[in-house]
Amino acid sequence: MIITGKQLVGYSRSGKGTQQFESQVTGENGKPFLFYEATTEEVATAVQKAQEAFDVSRGLSGKQLAAFLEAMAAELILALPTVIAVTQQETGLPAKRLEGEMDRTTKQIQMFATLLTEGSWVNAIIDPAIPDRAPLPKADIRQMQRPIGPVAVFGASNFPYAFSVAGGDTISALAAGCPVVYKAHPGHPVTSELIGECILKAAVATNMPEGIFSLVQGTSHETGRALVTHPAIKAVAFTGSFNGGKALYDVAAQRPEPVPVYAEMGSVNPVFVLPGMLQEKGTAIAQALVASNTAGTGQFCTNPGIIVSLKAEETAKFLADFCEGINGAAGSRMLTDNIYRSYTGGVERLRQIAGMQAIGAGTATAENNSAIPHSFLISGNAFLSEENMYEEVFGPASIQVMASNTNELYEIADKMPGQLTVTVWGTTADLENFKSLIFLLEKKAGRLLLNSVPTGVEVTHAMMHGGPYPATTDSKYTSVGSTAIYRFTRPVCYQGFPEFLLPEALRNENSLNIWRQVNGGFNKDSL
Amino acid sequence: MIITGKQLVGYSRSGKGTQQFESQVTGENGKPFLFYEATTEEVATAVQKAQEAFDVSRGLSGKQLAAFLEAMAAELILALPTVIAVTQQETGLPAKRLEGEMDRTTKQIQMFATLLTEGSWVNAIIDPAIPDRAPLPKADIRQMQRPIGPVAVFGASNFPYAFSVAGGDTISALAAGCPVVYKAHPGHPVTSELIGECILKAAVATNMPEGIFSLVQGTSHETGRALVTHPAIKAVAFTGSFNGGKALYDVAAQRPEPVPVYAEMGSVNPVFVLPGMLQEKGTAIAQALVASNTAGTGQFCTNPGIIVSLKAEETAKFLADFCEGINGAAGSRMLTDNIYRSYTGGVERLRQIAGMQAIGAGTATAENNSAIPHSFLISGNAFLSEENMYEEVFGPASIQVMASNTNELYEIADKMPGQLTVTVWGTTADLENFKSLIFLLEKKAGRLLLNSVPTGVEVTHAMMHGGPYPATTDSKYTSVGSTAIYRFTRPVCYQGFPEFLLPEALRNENSLNIWRQVNGGFNKDSL
Repeated sequence: MIITGKQLVGYSRSGKGTQQFESQVTGENGKPFLFYEATTEEVATAVQKAQEAFDVSRGLSGKQLAAFLEAMAAELILALPTVIAVTQQETGLPAKRLEGEMDRTTKQIQMFATLLTEGSWVNAIIDPAIPDRAPLPKADIRQMQRPIGPVAVFGASNFPYAFSVAGGDTISALAAGCPVVYKAHPGHPVTSELIGECILKAAVATNMPEGIFSLVQGTSHETGRALVTHPAIKAVAFTGSFNGGKALYDVAAQRPEPVPVYAEMGSVNPVFVLPGMLQEKGTAIAQALVASNTAGTGQFCTNPGIIVSLKAEETAKFLADFCEGINGAAGSRMLTDNIYRSYTGGVERLRQIAGMQAIGAGTATAENNSAIPHSFLISGNAFLSEENMYEEVFGPASIQVMASNTNELYEIADKMPGQLTVTVWGTTADLENFKSLIFLLEKKAGRLLLNSVPTGVEVTHAMMHGGPYPATTDSKYTSVGSTAIYRFTRPVCYQGFPEFLLPEALRNENSLNIWRQVNGGFNKDSL
Repeated sequence: MIITGKQLVGYSRSGKGTQQFESQVTGENGKPFLFYEATTEEVATAVQKAQEAFDVSRGLSGKQLAAFLEAMAAELILALPTVIAVTQQETGLPAKRLEGEMDRTTKQIQMFATLLTEGSWVNAIIDPAIPDRAPLPKADIRQMQRPIGPVAVFGASNFPYAFSVAGGDTISALAAGCPVVYKAHPGHPVTSELIGECILKAAVATNMPEGIFSLVQGTSHETGRALVTHPAIKAVAFTGSFNGGKALYDVAAQRPEPVPVYAEMGSVNPVFVLPGMLQEKGTAIAQALVASNTAGTGQFCTNPGIIVSLKAEETAKFLADFCEGINGAAGSRMLTDNIYRSYTGGVERLRQIAGMQAIGAGTATAENNSAIPHSFLISGNAFLSEENMYEEVFGPASIQVMASNTNELYEIADKMPGQLTVTVWGTTADLENFKSLIFLLEKKAGRLLLNSVPTGVEVTHAMMHGGPYPATTDSKYTSVGSTAIYRFTRPVCYQGFPEFLLPEALRNENSLNIWRQVNGGFNKDSL
C-alpha cells in the first residue's frame, strides 16, 4: 500500500473518516485493503488547497505545465508493471487490454503536453487599436482562453486509466492550468492510489504548487456531493451512468453559484446497415459488429447497442451471421458487482418487451460476475410502439431492429434521443439514396461514422466524444481529444493593456510563435 | 400598427389571447395600442414552426444566411425614421442615442454577414487518415461547428435595438443557422413589431423558411416559461436583471432535457483608481467616470457603479471633482416604471447602509420617471463589513469606496463576485506596483480595462461581454462580438465520410477558402 503524500488528501487507511470500505485486492497478509471514506472536512481541505494552488497554476507557462504532464507520463510508464497487476485483480480486465489502455493514457498525456508546448490552443484573438477611427477611436482589444478554477473530476469504472485518475478529464483540466480534486471510483481504489502517487511524484519533481492535484476515496454519494457543492469548485467532469451524471448536474445547477457539469453518460450508439452494403458485405459487417459489441465485455460508452436494417431477403443471412458470432462469444467478468447486476437486469427488461425475441446468446466463463453476450430482435413497428427503447443496457447486449420499410427506418432515426455516436454502413449508392438520413442523424449525435464501428475513440484534434442530451449534459464539449481542454477555460478580454501586463500570448511580439487571429485572419506574425 | 406576417406568431391585436396590455405609444385615435399576451398555444406554434425551419436553415450555406442578414440590415436602415420616432415615445431615449444604437445594430448585423461570407468561423478541424499506422490504422476524422437548434431570445429593455429584436442574440443565433423565437420586451412592444416586420421582409426576400423568426409579445412570466420549457427549444439567450436571468436558468436546468441559458445579468463594473494616476489625472478621470455613470441615465450593463481608491490627500480633490460632475448632471426619464421604481428603491437601500454618506446628487427633469443621479461615499472598512455591497443599482448611482490602505484595497477586490468588466486606472509605476491586483482581478471579470471607461462595448472579434457568475449564467460565452455565435453551435465530428457527404467546409478541396486546422496547424490549403 502506498503511503499517501501531503497533496493527496483523505484517502489513506489512516484517514480521519469512520466509514470503511474494502478493495477487491488483497495485501500480503491475504486480507483486502481497507479504505476510509473521505469526510466532508477532508474534501474541503482538498478543495481549499486546490483554490490556493490555482493562484499559482494560472500563472504558470504552457511549458511549465507541459513539463508536469511529461513527468507524469514518465512516472506512469515506470509504474506500469505494478499498476497493471493490481488493476487486473480489481477490474478483471485482461493484461493486454490494460497495457493498451495505459499506452493510450500516456500518449494522451503527451498529446496535451505537445498542445501546451505548441501553445496556439489559447485562441489568442487580437484586434489592434484604431486611434483615428471616426466618430470614436477604437481601443486595443485582445482575448485568450484562461483557466476557470479548481475542477472536480469523477472517474469512470470502465477505463481505470484513460478515463480515471490520470485520464482525459484530469489531464485536460491540469493542462488548462486548473487544479483537480479527483474522486476515485470505488471499483479500483488501489489502482487509483498508485496512479495518484505517480501524479504526486511528477508534481513534486516539476515544482507544481501543493494542492494542484488531490485524490479522495469514497463509495457514498455524500463524498461526491461535498465536492460538487464546495463554492471553490468551478467545473465538474464525470464519466459514467446517466443517473450518476444527472444527479451531479442537478446538484451543480442548484448551487448558489451554478457551475458547469461535463457528464459523459453513455448511449446506445445506433448503427444503420443500408440494403446495398448489407447485400455486399453482410457477413463482414455482422462480424465487425459482434466484435465491437462484445469487446471489453461490452463495457464501452460507444458500444453499438441497436442495429437497424431494412427487412429483406439478405437480412436473414445477416442476422444469422450476427447470431453465429454472438453464440460463439464467451462472456467475461464485468467490472463490478453493480455493473453485473445492472446488466442482467437490463437483459431481463429487454426480454419482457412486447415483440422482443431473444435470438442469440454466448456463454459465460467460470469467473465471478461473468456476463453472457445477448442478441435480440424486434420489428420496427414494435420498436416504435414502445417507450424508452433507446435506454442503454451497459454490457454485451444488442437489439436488431427490422424496419419493414424506409419510412419506418426514418421514424426510428427521428425518434432517437441524443447519442455519442451514430454509424451508417452503406455503399456509395446507398449513401446517395439515404442522404437525408445522414442529414437527419447529424442532429442526433456528436460523432457520425460511416462504414466503421463506433468503439475505439481516437485521441486527436477533430475527435468529438460527446453529444446531445442525454448522451452528455453539455453537447458543446468533448471529453476526448485536444479540444477537451476548453471545458476548463473561459475567454478573458484585455482592453488597453500595455505590453508588460499582457499575457505573453497576447503581446505584440509573438515570442511563443503561436497561431493568432489578428483582425479576423490567422497568422504567426508579431504586430 | 403593422399587420403581422405569417411567420410572426402570436403578437397581433387579433391574437387569440384574452390578456391585454397597453403600449406607451398612442395611435392616430389618441389611444395606446393594445396587445394581447401570447398564449401557450401561440408560443407552441412559433416553436413548432422554428423546429421545422431548422431542418432547412441548418442546410443553408453561409452565403445564403449572410444574404438574409444583409437584407435585414437594409430593411432596418429603410425603416429608421419611422422606428426611431416610435422608440423615442416608448423608451424616452433621445433620438441621437437611438440613431447611434441603430447604427451599431445594423453594423453588428453586417459584421455577422461578413463573418459568414468569410466562413472560417466554423472551426474546421481535419485529421486525415493514416491507413498504414501500426498497430491500428487511423481513420479520417473531421470536425466543425454546426447549429444547435431553435433558440429562444429574451430582449432587453435598455437597448431597444442592439440587444432586442434584431440585436446580437437574435443575429448570432440566425447566423449560426438557428431559427429564433423572440420574446419582446413589454417596454417597447411597438418598436419590437416594427423591427420584427423588417426581419420578416428580409426573410421573405431571401427565401428563408417559414418559422426562421417569430416574435411573441407578453408581460407575464407564463409566456417566457412556455417558451423556455418547450422541448424543441435548444438554447436560451437573455439580457436583463439577475432575477429574470436566474429564473430562466432555473427553469431551463429543470427541464426533462436541460438546455443552456446565456443570461447576461449586468454587474457593478468596479473601477480601481490607483494613487499615481489619481494624482496625475484625477480631475479628468472624475469627469470621464461621471459621464460613463450618467450616460443613458445610467442604464447600461457596464455602468461603473463602484469606484475604489486609496485614501490620500489627492482623493479629496478627486471626490470633489466627481461630486461636482454628479451635482451638475441632469437626470432623465428611465425606460420603464419598473426600472424607475427599482432605481429609487436601490438608492434608498444604499442610503440605509451603515457608514454610507450621500455626497452628491444631480437634478431631475420634469419628465415622468426622471432619475436623479446620485453619488455615495463609504470607507473600505464599512464596505467590507456589509454583505451584498456588490449588488447592482441599475441607473445613474455610484459608490466611492475609500480604502485606508493597500491591504484593504486587495480585500475589496478579493471579495468581489463575478463582473462583466473591471477597470483599473494607473500610471506605469502604479501598474508595476499593483501587478498582483491585475492578476487577482483577472479571476473576477470577462473584460479587464486599463485607463478607460467600461461603457461602450466594441463589436469586434476579441470582445468578451460576459463574465463569471453572477454577471452571467455561463462565463464561457460572450453576447457581443463575433464569438457570440458559438453559444448556438456544437461540434459535430465526421469519421470516414466520403467527399460528397461531407459539409463543404470539410471537403478536401477548400472551395470556401477558409482557415482550417489540419493536423494541428492552420492553413487555407486543399488536401
